[in-house]
Amino acid sequence: MEFEQKGFGSDNHASVHPKVIQSLIEANVNHAHSYGLDPLTARVEKKVREIFKTQTESFFVFNGTSANILALKACTRSYQSVLCSDVAHINVDECAGPEIHGGFKLIPVPSANGKITLDTLKSHFIRRGDQHFSQVKTISLTQPTELGTCYTLDELKAITQWAKSENLFVHIDGSRFANACVSLQLAMDTLTSKIGIDVLSLGGTKNGLMGAEMVIFFNTTIAGDFKYLRKQLGQLPSKSRYLAAQFDAYFNDDLWRLLANNSLKSARYFADALMSQTRFKPEYPVESNAVFVRFPKEWVKELKKERFFYVWDETTFVCRIMFSWDTQQEEIQSFVNLIAKLEKGN
Amino acid sequence: MEFEQKGFGSDNHASVHPKVIQSLIEANVNHAHSYGLDPLTARVEKKVREIFKTQTESFFVFNGTSANILALKACTRSYQSVLCSDVAHINVDECAGPEIHGGFKLIPVPSANGKITLDTLKSHFIRRGDQHFSQVKTISLTQPTELGTCYTLDELKAITQWAKSENLFVHIDGSRFANACVSLQLAMDTLTSKIGIDVLSLGGTKNGLMGAEMVIFFNTTIAGDFKYLRKQLGQLPSKSRYLAAQFDAYFNDDLWRLLANNSLKSARYFADALMSQTRFKPEYPVESNAVFVRFPKEWVKELKKERFFYVWDETTFVCRIMFSWDTQQEEIQSFVNLIAKLEKGN
Amino acid sequence: MEFEQKGFGSDNHASVHPKVIQSLIEANVNHAHSYGLDPLTARVEKKVREIFKTQTESFFVFNGTSANILALKACTRSYQSVLCSDVAHINVDECAGPEIHGGFKLIPVPSANGKITLDTLKSHFIRRGDQHFSQVKTISLTQPTELGTCYTLDELKAITQWAKSENLFVHIDGSRFANACVSLQLAMDTLTSKIGIDVLSLGGTKNGLMGAEMVIFFNTTIAGDFKYLRKQLGQLPSKSRYLAAQFDAYFNDDLWRLLANNSLKSARYFADALMSQTRFKPEYPVESNAVFVRFPKEWVKELKKERFFYVWDETTFVCRIMFSWDTQQEEIQSFVNLIAKLEKGN
Amino acid sequence: MEFEQKGFGSDNHASVHPKVIQSLIEANVNHAHSYGLDPLTARVEKKVREIFKTQTESFFVFNGTSANILALKACTRSYQSVLCSDVAHINVDECAGPEIHGGFKLIPVPSANGKITLDTLKSHFIRRGDQHFSQVKTISLTQPTELGTCYTLDELKAITQWAKSENLFVHIDGSRFANACVSLQLAMDTLTSKIGIDVLSLGGTKNGLMGAEMVIFFNTTIAGDFKYLRKQLGQLPSKSRYLAAQFDAYFNDDLWRLLANNSLKSARYFADALMSQTRFKPEYPVESNAVFVRFPKEWVKELKKERFFYVWDETTFVCRIMFSWDTQQEEIQSFVNLIAKLEKGN
Repeated sequence: MEFEQKGFGSDNHASVHPKVIQSLIEANVNHAHSYGLDPLTARVEKKVREIFKTQTESFFVFNGTSANILALKACTRSYQSVLCSDVAHINVDECAGPEIHGGFKLIPVPSANGKITLDTLKSHFIRRGDQHFSQVKTISLTQPTELGTCYTLDELKAITQWAKSENLFVHIDGSRFANACVSLQLAMDTLTSKIGIDVLSLGGTKNGLMGAEMVIFFNTTIAGDFKYLRKQLGQLPSKSRYLAAQFDAYFNDDLWRLLANNSLKSARYFADALMSQTRFKPEYPVESNAVFVRFPKEWVKELKKERFFYVWDETTFVCRIMFSWDTQQEEIQSFVNLIAKLEKGN
Repeated sequence: MEFEQKGFGSDNHASVHPKVIQSLIEANVNHAHSYGLDPLTARVEKKVREIFKTQTESFFVFNGTSANILALKACTRSYQSVLCSDVAHINVDECAGPEIHGGFKLIPVPSANGKITLDTLKSHFIRRGDQHFSQVKTISLTQPTELGTCYTLDELKAITQWAKSENLFVHIDGSRFANACVSLQLAMDTLTSKIGIDVLSLGGTKNGLMGAEMVIFFNTTIAGDFKYLRKQLGQLPSKSRYLAAQFDAYFNDDLWRLLANNSLKSARYFADALMSQTRFKPEYPVESNAVFVRFPKEWVKELKKERFFYVWDETTFVCRIMFSWDTQQEEIQSFVNLIAKLEKGN
Repeated sequence: MEFEQKGFGSDNHASVHPKVIQSLIEANVNHAHSYGLDPLTARVEKKVREIFKTQTESFFVFNGTSANILALKACTRSYQSVLCSDVAHINVDECAGPEIHGGFKLIPVPSANGKITLDTLKSHFIRRGDQHFSQVKTISLTQPTELGTCYTLDELKAITQWAKSENLFVHIDGSRFANACVSLQLAMDTLTSKIGIDVLSLGGTKNGLMGAEMVIFFNTTIAGDFKYLRKQLGQLPSKSRYLAAQFDAYFNDDLWRLLANNSLKSARYFADALMSQTRFKPEYPVESNAVFVRFPKEWVKELKKERFFYVWDETTFVCRIMFSWDTQQEEIQSFVNLIAKLEKGN
Repeated sequence: MEFEQKGFGSDNHASVHPKVIQSLIEANVNHAHSYGLDPLTARVEKKVREIFKTQTESFFVFNGTSANILALKACTRSYQSVLCSDVAHINVDECAGPEIHGGFKLIPVPSANGKITLDTLKSHFIRRGDQHFSQVKTISLTQPTELGTCYTLDELKAITQWAKSENLFVHIDGSRFANACVSLQLAMDTLTSKIGIDVLSLGGTKNGLMGAEMVIFFNTTIAGDFKYLRKQLGQLPSKSRYLAAQFDAYFNDDLWRLLANNSLKSARYFADALMSQTRFKPEYPVESNAVFVRFPKEWVKELKKERFFYVWDETTFVCRIMFSWDTQQEEIQSFVNLIAKLEKGN
């Protein structure tokens, strides 16, 4: 099978890290109980408790969309709402899975650089007790955001503190959570369990795994019936040892950090090179593994030939250049060289 | 990681066949488009068309429950019903996922040896056009059934012929479909596309894959919006090449047949040995990789120590002895020996 | 407008009792707050507390199907099940509204004369804690049943006592609840609040109202969010005073009892006349306002000309002869006379 | 029962017009088939076809929320979206009923004076065929809007013409549709069937009925399964003659027009008096029976004592003064007098 050369299309175009493959091979012996009752799953659940330094309840699921649907469903009844950014993946990229299968209303709120502020959240916390109005119950924050920015620890603390005071839940959509941790140089628990986050969708697939995500509850009072919700949605893995094996490798020696570091460094290298060697600059702060740049429409075809990427907005031609665990510096540099060359040609 | 010794608990306790692992390793190079747009996915889709000798539309999903929910959802609107066996997996083992996320009513009908007859189906085809009654639209048959029996080709033909005449859809829950094919000594297309089945949930995980199933439409008129339904349920794999790689190996040189053959042969070996060497006999015809036997309650603990299995019915102590692609004859024989020994001890 | 002559088709073919019309006229003055905040609604809520002698929470809804969907939805989460009779209205006459809009699984269990026994319920209370199996949480009993029979007080007590011991909820579908009360000669509270019923769908439309039902919670811990569930389903009446006015008249001087008594007496008169004057007899015990009789197929047309009724089962020609608050004795007698005449003619 | 004096709170605080009561009384004789099979329902269905001058399919439902949920559900599958104004009733006042029970995504778009423009709709018609994005299928317009404004005939024509060209459906939420017709001085069909509207929620309750709405399909290709959807949601009236009787009176001699005219005239009288006799003026164009005025916060209590009304926005103290079929000129004038007096007192 011939695949494409490596590109900047998405971190889930990348392959699986060899250590993860190795872990799968090692797990492939004898028999193991299915549906989460194997010892490898237990080992990963224990590791999760160590990493987050609290009595988490954690569950494997197959992908990020289902992690979000299920995490939010555990928090939110049918007559309650989830506040999220207008550009949130749950609002614009999950084909209404959250509303239809999560079974609640999403209220998208305006964002700046992909982030929503506490003030915006507060202004949407209205009509309490009014039976005509779906009652806000949960806040979903994407960390890092769809635009590659990160909520600071202080921003998160302010939001969770307010949320607690109003009896609301806070969910983190962390499909690229490792990238936020390395960018903010903070531990996973510092950004979640320590500050009162209730539940995290922890991604792995975009950072070198084959296909595995976790839903991790720090607030275990809402985790009691999660096993049923997961099964019902078709997200209970039968041979769960093979999802566990992926996360086992991911957590071993902080592989996740190594991989996320490479993609973050790549983004920063690209942003720096872009600004120093061309007249272009990133549209948003570069705080994760994606850089958004507005290229001239007529360049896109030639640039894509060099390295594949996506036009993010078909009207403005802002493009998303995304880096992955396997990106190498020379791949970036040759891409920047082409931009510089096109610029000169103009 | 220490797993258990091999047992007779379930075919999804078994490991992944080495050729499938090898296929995953070979797929693990360069970059590939995500969400089903990679060349390996295209290759498998083409293979499926060859195997079923018609213009199928096929889709990877992560597991069998979701395959069933989605296949049936494509056929059935909210005010329509699915007729299924009272012991069907969709009725008793999917935590109401079909009703809740498929969004239709299930009408369980009485079965014998796990199978439902055409007459039973007809007697539940009532109250057409009556707005108070959820209208029967789809028939779901499990092949092989939960009790290890198979619908014969003639039985299937009679049901599909009648279904067509009444404008109903027929779905096959084929989580162990390979086992039915080898048991009936019939090709995959003979049992589906050739006789007018509309859609198949084709399992792989229980027959040597790591975690991959397909929904295959022979009636492509109902497949048009399936991609949205799949994404919405959280069943669109991002790195789809790794599901494709599993099925690529599965179809190569009919690996599926080799593996299913071993588990079928094992079941027959066990049934024969049981009947010739002990006073026990299977509860149902042995037409697949499971044998159901009613053991004395007090033996179960000791028998489980030899090889793990499940008590199927806690009231009658009918037990399910299930074989997998990796079962070896001596494992069966030593188990039968123990039964014989216990029998003598009595 | 010319309507049909009075018949035996259904108690909701009957007109509205004049006192109910009078109550609507009296309520039709000035302005009143909408959505349940008017003083007439408050008065009826207070009356309900007096009748059931406990701190009920009660809510108007428009019809019986929605009362059932909402009452059960308040008790039952998506991964939980409702046990009901196989002939229950919620199972066969609500077009899957309970599953689709209630959002839970229905498990129909075998019945005799329309009733389910405690033993049958117990035998379906299985697989506790098993994530693959939708967990039984609620029992729905129809009182009187679809076949015109009534659960005795002792039967109800046994079921509710067991339900409490297993932490299950018990719901009464009482679309004809007044008929059960007069038949059993027991007060409304004796059959519900006093014995631990959690929630009642209390019908009125079939017993002389224009169109109004109530959902009454005796277990108020599950009523907290009901106002949202009701609004969300589209069952919050805007001009609620006009539903309140109906129930105000219904409860005044026990009008409900007077009306139900007439339909019960009619059924008994018919059953007695049938047995004494013809060779026919009721198929089920006559404990409410319906009598089921198996007539020769060829008589049905002529009998229907005399008084309209429904063939209940198209295969056996069991017919349902149903009486209402406005049935008069001579209407019944002339119908029996015709049966006797046809019998002689044979 | 003592109700409140007449006020300006809502048109559904008002009582039922005497002719509607009279119609109910006349319908209250003999027996009538239930569930829509009575002759009065047939008569109203015929009238609807005459009024809209086309082969409509029309259905009674109990209230406006359910009319909207069902009308939109008939147009829109689970992976499709409805575009509506950000202030639309379906978005902010139906407790997420459309999402949860309609089973689709709502995409709220920015509005001006309650109306959305064709350009705004076009800018949200994106990502066609993209499986990650819920596909826009239906446009819901409120006529008149929540802010009392009306879409002009030209605006409607432009939107429906574009919608047809893109194979989209157009729904009108017409809970106060009569008010739009009298305000625009256009016939009901001119504003709907003639210009390609697909389906209308036609309100009656807010304009003098007791509790009855209709869903009217001009595009009958989407009405085929509506009877099941209605029953399933719990919106099939059993004694439907009593809803029919209300609409029978409503359509007779254009009673609807007479009633809507009074409330419109009242609004205009109030707006004129306000502007000529005080320094206040309406916040939005007065094109229906509501006038929005920003009063000083400290006046609200005293003004409410004179005539009840709602503060529409608790932050700006914009108030909604709403008129109904029974509003009388002197009631308005005395209210304006009080405003003038308070103004002087300042």
